[in-house]
Amino acid sequence: MASFRMGSGHAVPMSLFKNNRTKCTKAVLDKLSASLKFNTGSLFVLLEGGKDVSVYNTDVDYVFRQESYFQYLFGAKEPGCYGIMNIDVKTGGATAVLFVPRLPEEYETWMGQLLEPKDFKAMYEVDEVYYVDEMETYLERIAPKLILTLSGTNSDSGLTMQPPEFKGKDKYTTNCQLLYPIISECRVIKSPEEIEVLRYVAKVSSDAHIKVMQFIRPGRMEFEGEAVFLHHAYAVGGCRHASYTCICGSGTNSAILHYGHAGAPNDRPIQDGDMCLFDMGANYCGYAADITCSFPANGKFTEDQKFIYNAVLAARNAVMESARDGVSWVDMHKLAGKVLLQQLKAGGMLTGDVDEMVAAGVSGVFQPHGLGHLLGLDVHDVGGYLDSEPARPSESWLSKLRFARILRAGMYVTIEPGCYFIKRLMDNALADPKISKFINVAVLERFRNFGGVRIEDDVLITKTGTENFAIVPRTVEEIEAAMAAK
Amino acid sequence: MASFRMGSGHAVPMSLFKNNRTKCTKAVLDKLSASLKFNTGSLFVLLEGGKDVSVYNTDVDYVFRQESYFQYLFGAKEPGCYGIMNIDVKTGGATAVLFVPRLPEEYETWMGQLLEPKDFKAMYEVDEVYYVDEMETYLERIAPKLILTLSGTNSDSGLTMQPPEFKGKDKYTTNCQLLYPIISECRVIKSPEEIEVLRYVAKVSSDAHIKVMQFIRPGRMEFEGEAVFLHHAYAVGGCRHASYTCICGSGTNSAILHYGHAGAPNDRPIQDGDMCLFDMGANYCGYAADITCSFPANGKFTEDQKFIYNAVLAARNAVMESARDGVSWVDMHKLAGKVLLQQLKAGGMLTGDVDEMVAAGVSGVFQPHGLGHLLGLDVHDVGGYLDSEPARPSESWLSKLRFARILRAGMYVTIEPGCYFIKRLMDNALADPKISKFINVAVLERFRNFGGVRIEDDVLITKTGTENFAIVPRTVEEIEAAMAAK
Repeated sequence: MASFRMGSGHAVPMSLFKNNRTKCTKAVLDKLSASLKFNTGSLFVLLEGGKDVSVYNTDVDYVFRQESYFQYLFGAKEPGCYGIMNIDVKTGGATAVLFVPRLPEEYETWMGQLLEPKDFKAMYEVDEVYYVDEMETYLERIAPKLILTLSGTNSDSGLTMQPPEFKGKDKYTTNCQLLYPIISECRVIKSPEEIEVLRYVAKVSSDAHIKVMQFIRPGRMEFEGEAVFLHHAYAVGGCRHASYTCICGSGTNSAILHYGHAGAPNDRPIQDGDMCLFDMGANYCGYAADITCSFPANGKFTEDQKFIYNAVLAARNAVMESARDGVSWVDMHKLAGKVLLQQLKAGGMLTGDVDEMVAAGVSGVFQPHGLGHLLGLDVHDVGGYLDSEPARPSESWLSKLRFARILRAGMYVTIEPGCYFIKRLMDNALADPKISKFINVAVLERFRNFGGVRIEDDVLITKTGTENFAIVPRTVEEIEAAMAAK
Repeated sequence: MASFRMGSGHAVPMSLFKNNRTKCTKAVLDKLSASLKFNTGSLFVLLEGGKDVSVYNTDVDYVFRQESYFQYLFGAKEPGCYGIMNIDVKTGGATAVLFVPRLPEEYETWMGQLLEPKDFKAMYEVDEVYYVDEMETYLERIAPKLILTLSGTNSDSGLTMQPPEFKGKDKYTTNCQLLYPIISECRVIKSPEEIEVLRYVAKVSSDAHIKVMQFIRPGRMEFEGEAVFLHHAYAVGGCRHASYTCICGSGTNSAILHYGHAGAPNDRPIQDGDMCLFDMGANYCGYAADITCSFPANGKFTEDQKFIYNAVLAARNAVMESARDGVSWVDMHKLAGKVLLQQLKAGGMLTGDVDEMVAAGVSGVFQPHGLGHLLGLDVHDVGGYLDSEPARPSESWLSKLRFARILRAGMYVTIEPGCYFIKRLMDNALADPKISKFINVAVLERFRNFGGVRIEDDVLITKTGTENFAIVPRTVEEIEAAMAAK
């Protein structure tokens, strides 16, 4: 049984990818059989793997990360591959064929032992392996009646994947549009083996978060927290990559949703009295975690910090208790927003009727992002806005949602309500009579430099509810106890 | 005095970049004044900064790294900028103009406070700052007589940088070929301020190497060493980036020159009796370190390990004592090769006349790479094979040299002799009577699974010799003492 494993980390069986291929084959045939113009012969699913990316024109590459669709079907860690699922449309059976680069002899000196096709066959448990330069001959030999290739637009990034080029392409009938929604939909519902990888990487990331919370104190730099997280994830968990750039905001930086980028690189010294919002997730075998912990820098919540933190926690708990197979994600977003407003009203920051506040869009002042997103091989995972699923809502406070689907068992999502005090949004709200009438200005102004709170869990949707893979302290008492235990 | 600083790390003064601009302005005028068709008015040096690079079509970017030429002249950490040096060809004076992206209001919610041109002006100490969308107007206002843009081929990667595109480009006389060799040559000789940054990042990297040596023992994973290095470099040194993918080879992996890539990801458990070869360098404010330490996994050299290690150390010491302003780098490579062969002969692995061995190319069996390379903003820094400098030697054992220049004071280079037992090269050597006649087969075979040794220092060339910025244990005794002190 071949597997991917880093040190004592989770052994990811290659059967995970085989089962993904089986699922994808079935989905392709289910969707397309009726419209195919042939009922014998070969239908190909042909994917190009990721290539090395150089840093500008220098002699350095970014550490290679496999392209996610290719990872999903083939689980190969090397750049420069192609993969084919050769589907027999009559029997529904499929063979998996991996094409690897033929490397020059010199490679052995610089990059290590030259693996042969049989080595790759054993390592990835595919049916056949050839060199990429043999793909043209393979195509000629099998003479597929249709080749499905991958092209599509990511609904989170807006970026389009171009279909692959390969020798002899013009000799075959190809289609680059049918496949993308089919594999994307396959990726939405996680398999038992995928769930175990996701559980593992969430646990590693959770432990790393706890390490960070116990490390942070006034005087530390934000980036030191990032370094502690990355070190634990890699040294203990075997996760070489983070799933996204670490967000390590303290003080008012905790109100910047995607803080931590090159222009704002987690470079502030943490102060006594700060709230910290650390949003970090490791990556293992391509699979992502995405967890946020919010906590007081000095380990002890003030009354104001408790107020906001518990407001967000109430929203999170409400969603955790309501989400399950069959429930609308948009309804969960609305629920979180409403509970947050109720809490802010109870604490004296807002006044008036909560339903009217919801209708006026007051939630968006405090949480200008969606409740969460699909999670899997990509941190903002694919499948959010497929043509077959509900479209992006148009209302401004719903339009940031990264999907608007009915939850199904096997979906894996982040639940991440937040409450932020963002100067521009506060000022806009105060200047808008339709919003400001709900605001107790004196209370709101007390929070102008508060920053923000986000509580983000990684949650598997089940038939009856949710299972949370983020195992971190969540209540005020749990957080204070964890930080005191450093 | 504005500066770049991460935590308690080195404060890099913005005058570093101003001085780079002054040097570049002078170099441009020195090289081009005689051939310019105008003697009043503006000559522009126009550079495009780096852009964010997304991971495939996902919603995640690689952590941004500024393009090195842009960093050299402007030191700006944000993506999406342009920079102009507006040179008055009559006076030789120049103004530095930075163009920054005009970001949407929404940016403030997701990415942080919207900085204004005056903020960037203060942060980077340039003369003028505008938005990128104002560049066309700026060009029209100044009406430069010639715009020099940057395009050229990196002699290490073979990759070509494309000249920038910008609005209104067609209205001006531009040249994209003159500038590349001029700035490249400027980058070769380091300024006093650059030397201080390089000294800092080499010290941080050295300390991180010592941490790793003290951490490693049989049973640890190779990648744990990488994690320890990256953590120290970031948490203590403020270095968010490594300058290249960490090479953490143990056992036979230590003979793979660029081990550690995605196909061979430092994933072996380290064994008792292994040699370890760890080649890792941090990056600070764009500036690189590149240091290799080789050491026994268990902290105590065997006699065979001492033999090979001391052979490489002798080669390294010979070069350290001989390199200085005016000396040929090719001669240094030859010297290292010859000393290595002398040592291997003294240890009984080789027999015969050493000069004949050199002539037969025996050095290349054991060290199939060049002695070192220029180092600076890029780990394989630019300026190696400019048209004005000696071309790449054609002899096979010299052709891997990354430059063939006469050393000059202010050059910064790696000195990295090595001795590796690479199966294919050993077998080729044994099969070649012109080489095998020098080999004591029984002794060589004893080292078949030895791995390799590399000793890599980061060295400033001075008028009278060298200054080594890599402060790590180098003798057998120093290494054993450092590892025992864990």
